[in-house]
Order: sequence, then structure tokens, then C-alpha cells
Amino acid sequence: MVNSTIKKAADLLDKVRDKSPLVHNITNYVTVNDCANILIAIGASPIMADDVREVSDIVSIASALVINIGTLNDRTVESMLIAGKRANELNIPVILDPVGVGASNFRNSTAKTILDNVKISVLRGNISEIKFISGLKSYTKGVDAGESDLNSGSKESETIAYNLSKTLGCIVAITGVSDVISDGNKTVVLNNGNKMLSKVTGSGCMTTALIGAYLGAASEDPFSAAVAGILTMSIAGEISFEKNGKKGTGNFHIGIIDAVSNMTSMMLKRRAKIQEEKN
Amino acid sequence: MVNSTIKKAADLLDKVRDKSPLVHNITNYVTVNDCANILIAIGASPIMADDVREVSDIVSIASALVINIGTLNDRTVESMLIAGKRANELNIPVILDPVGVGASNFRNSTAKTILDNVKISVLRGNISEIKFISGLKSYTKGVDAGESDLNSGSKESETIAYNLSKTLGCIVAITGVSDVISDGNKTVVLNNGNKMLSKVTGSGCMTTALIGAYLGAASEDPFSAAVAGILTMSIAGEISFEKNGKKGTGNFHIGIIDAVSNMTSMMLKRRAKIQEEKN
Amino acid sequence: MVNSTIKKAADLLDKVRDKSPLVHNITNYVTVNDCANILIAIGASPIMADDVREVSDIVSIASALVINIGTLNDRTVESMLIAGKRANELNIPVILDPVGVGASNFRNSTAKTILDNVKISVLRGNISEIKFISGLKSYTKGVDAGESDLNSGSKESETIAYNLSKTLGCIVAITGVSDVISDGNKTVVLNNGNKMLSKVTGSGCMTTALIGAYLGAASEDPFSAAVAGILTMSIAGEISFEKNGKKGTGNFHIGIIDAVSNMTSMMLKRRAKIQEEKN
Repeated sequence: MVNSTIKKAADLLDKVRDKSPLVHNITNYVTVNDCANILIAIGASPIMADDVREVSDIVSIASALVINIGTLNDRTVESMLIAGKRANELNIPVILDPVGVGASNFRNSTAKTILDNVKISVLRGNISEIKFISGLKSYTKGVDAGESDLNSGSKESETIAYNLSKTLGCIVAITGVSDVISDGNKTVVLNNGNKMLSKVTGSGCMTTALIGAYLGAASEDPFSAAVAGILTMSIAGEISFEKNGKKGTGNFHIGIIDAVSNMTSMMLKRRAKIQEEKN
Repeated sequence: MVNSTIKKAADLLDKVRDKSPLVHNITNYVTVNDCANILIAIGASPIMADDVREVSDIVSIASALVINIGTLNDRTVESMLIAGKRANELNIPVILDPVGVGASNFRNSTAKTILDNVKISVLRGNISEIKFISGLKSYTKGVDAGESDLNSGSKESETIAYNLSKTLGCIVAITGVSDVISDGNKTVVLNNGNKMLSKVTGSGCMTTALIGAYLGAASEDPFSAAVAGILTMSIAGEISFEKNGKKGTGNFHIGIIDAVSNMTSMMLKRRAKIQEEKN
Repeated sequence: MVNSTIKKAADLLDKVRDKSPLVHNITNYVTVNDCANILIAIGASPIMADDVREVSDIVSIASALVINIGTLNDRTVESMLIAGKRANELNIPVILDPVGVGASNFRNSTAKTILDNVKISVLRGNISEIKFISGLKSYTKGVDAGESDLNSGSKESETIAYNLSKTLGCIVAITGVSDVISDGNKTVVLNNGNKMLSKVTGSGCMTTALIGAYLGAASEDPFSAAVAGILTMSIAGEISFEKNGKKGTGNFHIGIIDAVSNMTSMMLKRRAKIQEEKN
């Protein structure tokens, strides 16, 4: 029997394919092509636009806004704020990926400004990023989680996600070997994925984009959207590893997009490995 | 016997490989890598440069200029205008891809400013974009054509392309399930392609880039260049689907570049499906 | 018996995998995804950051800085200078890829400003770019080497690399059909590679990024780092061609990343083809 959290999340895949939500991305130029392609693969329509003179128009026709600070600058930070505030006015869900927060003062102040001015539905990051935003000591390694942060156990991650979710009033997701998702009430741990996912740039960005697609189809249930996005990426990693792992990280990367384009809600349900906790 | 329009277009492939034209692209950061790789695959040399202080130098050594407004900003819009005007002075052909026009005032005004100030050889867009530029009611979905626009028949597209071509005095190409190309005199409809092409971001941008390569080798015949660019992309999509369709959209995407790198004029002639009309 | 230059270079691969150096890249938006993925494939951690307000922070935590002028603008040129100077202060090695120098005054003046203000450990370019920086007449074709420059023999390249290395006081590497690397004392010629490498955009950028990874693990031996980076890319090209050459340039491109992710120091030693000269 499928766990009810998984069932609710997996069923959203059909909703994404049915609605084909337009997802507005203000994102970095490193992984932007993968983010666009994975959004199409899951059934959404991506649009990337980051100029101050158009983000308000673009977000107004979108079903979700993804803000990713992977390569930020003055111009795009202003756009993130304008788009985020407009999205809030229109009840369009916003997801934030605070890439590399902790690695520079500019990233730190940008993440803070966004969180202070924009109501976020889902915050997704690695353990170092989420610890930093929580005000805890963190050891980021550029855009990757630092080793000493990675050594903290899943129990600690659950507590961090739960507490930050309470503080921010949004879903908090920490992705890594295990993924933890909390809404400040329920906290779940997902144990899917493959370690080769850390060998492709943008596996985090793509996960965030996927959550954006699910949010665009189901803004009323951000928790299930976060579970669905993370589950889709993790299981796509497993499938791609089975098919391409021996070839190398280049084909593994391409195989992730393949797997998402062929994913079904049934596959998500069959493969999902979840632990659930009531806090 | 091969249709003469197809023969003229397909023979340009050998000319591209022989001349290896330098194609200057001012384009978006989402699909720029694919555009560069497909230009090399067809036999051209790409250069991407978008700063106001160098676009005049760069376009001066190029054989064609591709302007794509997929992710535009103040800085790059100014560069597009400078490069476009300089190209006109030097009789270097310019192709415009008005990505997402209709989706924001900034895109609308930018497309208008470019068309008012730069003489374009070929304009390529989807049905929503071309309807918008024609002053018709359009229903763009971000950077994709809207559904109600897609439901308009090929006869309507032919009329729109023909009329806009007359108005602008350039080749107008509308790509979609069928592709329509008009020079305001002759109008042709191409029926190649595969629906999976709509599942890869940048299939439109890559088509535009390919037209740029053909224009760079044959600026005297922009109609054949447009036919050749669209035919190359559509047939590459068919070939990649045959080889990679079942794998998923990731491998399908990579297979498009493969197919273009192995394309021959003979393959274009054998596979082309064309309807021709004199207006 | 393995040549001692090759042995020293190849052994650095294990050092990269062991240390996993953080490599800060200020680079172009055309090939940035490939550069990030190839850095992960070799065992390094990439971070891309180009805003003036964060490059000083980012470079401070990095083990090497890669400056690539492939798509430059006012904003990023300033960042290159700030990051380069800060790297010098902290004894973090800097590698410069003067993409397309010779093609515009802006690129020319930028390359000159960087070389005048930042101490470079390794300069890597194609023959046209290195001739231009040497003050010799060069015939660049956009970002590719011009044909008449390519016709100059390997002896001429050796002299150019040797002389420029003496002048600049850094390692100079000219990559092409043969690759020449000089430290102003020893000059070596590498004869690995495959001509299909010229059919993928960014093979030069990726080579530079790889040198950055090796420099990040072995800043004390920039000559071996340059040899190792170039050898890794050339041999990856050979391996990918064996596996993917017939498929086309799309799969060849992906196969390069595959090959780097599976590369071992033993493979580098077995396949290396080197000529060595004492000047």
C-alpha cells in the first residue's frame, strides 16, 4: 500500500502534465538550459526572463516563480525582488533556491533581502545553505555543502528543517544523500537518489525547478509539491544511473532529462522510499 | 524528381560547409550553447558577443548576424541595434527571432524598435509571435505559441506570412507542426519534423541559428536560406526521433546535433516534404 | 618507461581527486555548463561568480581562478580585475583564456589590461590568440584560429610559446592539432587529441578549466598542471571519438565529459604522446 504522502505527491505529476503550468525562472546562467529542459520534460512550460522592465509582466502570466541566486548581480537581484513582490500580490507561489549562500556577503544579504520582502512557499537548499539561513554555523564549499555539514545526521537535518519552517512559515527542504522536507508540522525523510547526482552541476537547481512545476499545478499544496519535485529528481537519478552509470557523468546527466520525460506517477509510487515523522 | 525550391535550398548545405561562414549571434543565455554547437555541426563558425563596445567590430568580420531576444536586457538591446545597423551598412544579412514577443511590453517594444531601425532579411517565429508582429490578436504562452493560435490552420498561417512579408519586405517564416515560408511572392509549406522537437528548449533558436549559417553562405538568396535552415532542423528532428525517441527528450536533444553534423544535401532532398503556392 | 614530464603531470590527477579544489570561474555564458561539468568530472568543485560585489569573497575561498573572456562586458571585466588582483595577494594561481583576442578592440584591451595588472600562472589560447598577444600579425576567425595561422608549423609555435613565456614570466600553452607548452625553459609538444574536438564549442574553454583544476591541486607546479589539463582533454577526445565518433558531434560532446569522469592517471600515462625539447 502506498504511503498517503507519496500518493498525494505522485498524483501531482498527472496534474502538471494536464495543466502544463508556465514557470517563470530568474536563475543562473550555468544550469539554465537544464532547468528549461527538465521543466519541459515534466510537462511544464519554462520562461526565463530577468530584466527589471519585464519580470513584472512575465510573472503575471506565470503559475509559479522560481528564484535561484546561483549567479547573481545587481540587475538580477532587483528583478528577483520586483518579480517576487508581484507574485505575492497575485498569489503566485514563489520558490527560493539560495545557491551558495554563506560563500559571499553578497549572496548572504541577497538571500536575507528576498526572505524579508517576499513570501516564499518553498525554500530548497543543501544542508550548508539551510544551516546558514537558520543562523547556524555552516561550512559551505562554494555552491556545494561542506564536508563537516554533510556529516551531520539526518536527525539534525530534520530538526533544522522543522525549526526553519516554523520561523519562516514556509516549506523547507534540505536535499542531500537523504532529503528532508518539513512544513513546521509534518517532517518527512526521502531516501531515494544516487550519489552520481552530486557529479552533475545543477542537480539542485533542476530539483528546485521541478518543485516550481509542481507548485504551478498545485499551489494549494506546497508540501506535496516539494515532495514530488524532490522525488522526481531522485528517482530520475536512480533510473539514469541504471542506464548510464557506467558510461560516465556526461551520459548520466542527459539520462536524467530522459528519465523525467518518461516518468509516471506509478513509477514515483513504486520507487519512493519515505520515512515520516510527526513533530 | 526533386522540387526546384528544395534543390536550391539543399544545395546550400555544401556551400555552408565550403565557406564556413562566421555567424555573429546576439542571443539568449538559455540555448546559446546549443546554438553554437548546431552552427559548428552545419559547418559554420559561431561567435557570441553582446557588449556595446565590441558588437560593431565583431559583426564587421561576420557573414551573418542572428538577433534573438529570448533573454534581453537594456545592455543587450542596445547591442542588437548597434550591430544590426552596422550589419546593414556592410550588407551583412540579419535574421531576427522575436522570442516571446507578446509576453511583455519590453519584448514588444524591443521587437518594434529593431524592425523600425534594422533591415531584416529573415524573420522567424512561432505563430503567436508572428501574429503579434502582424498586429493581429495573439495568445502567446511565454516563449511558446498559445493553444488557440496553434489551432489556426495552415491556410491562415500562409496568409499571415505572405502579408507580413509584403509589409516588412523580408522573408517571413512561421515554424510549427507545418512550417510556412513566404517572400511576399512565393509561399511554401514544409511538412517535415517531429512533435518531440517541441519538447526541447531552443529548437526554435537553433532553427534561427541554422538559417543564419545558410544566410552567411548565400546572402543573395534569403528565401532558400530560410527553407534550408528549417528543413535541416525538421529533418534532424525526424532522424533523432528514429534513433533516440524511445530513450527520452535528453538523448533526443543530443541526437539533433548529431543529425545535423551528419546531414548531407542528398538527405535533405530525399526527405523534404513541400507544398508550394504562388500567391 | 613513462616520460618524466608525463609522469609528473598524470600523477596530478590523483591529487585533484584527493583535494577536490574549489575553482572559481569568471567565464562566458556559452560554455559555462560544460566547464562546470568537466570540473566536477575531473574531481574539482566549480563555482561561477562574476559580480564585482562578490568575486573578492569567492576567490578568497578558492584554490584557483579561471578567467575566460569569451563573452565579456563592462561589469565582468571589472570583476576579472578585482578577482585577479585578490588572487595574486592570496597566492591563488590564475589562468587566463584570452578567447577571441584579435577579433575586437574590446577583447584586445581587456586581455592587455588583465596581463598588465594580474600575475598569470598559465596562459592558454589557440595559435591566433597567442600570436596576437605576442604582438605578431595574426588572423583570428572570431573565436577560432584563422587558417593561415593554423598553417604555421609546430616549430614556429614552439618559438612563439617560448618567447612569450620568457616575456610574461608564465606558462604559455598553444592548443591545436599539436599542443605546445613552454615555461620559458623547457618546451614540450603533445600529439594527442582528435580533430572532432574542433567541432564542439568550448573544447578550449574546458581545457582551460581543467588546467584550473590541476593548478588548484598543485599551484607549485604550473607547468605540469598545464600539461595535465591539456593531456586530459586530448585523451578524453580520443576516447570519446572511439565510442561516439560515428554518432555525431552531439554524442561526441557528451562523451568528453564521460571520458574525463572515468579518466585515470594510468590512462594518461599510457596514451600520452610527447616530444620534449630543451630550449
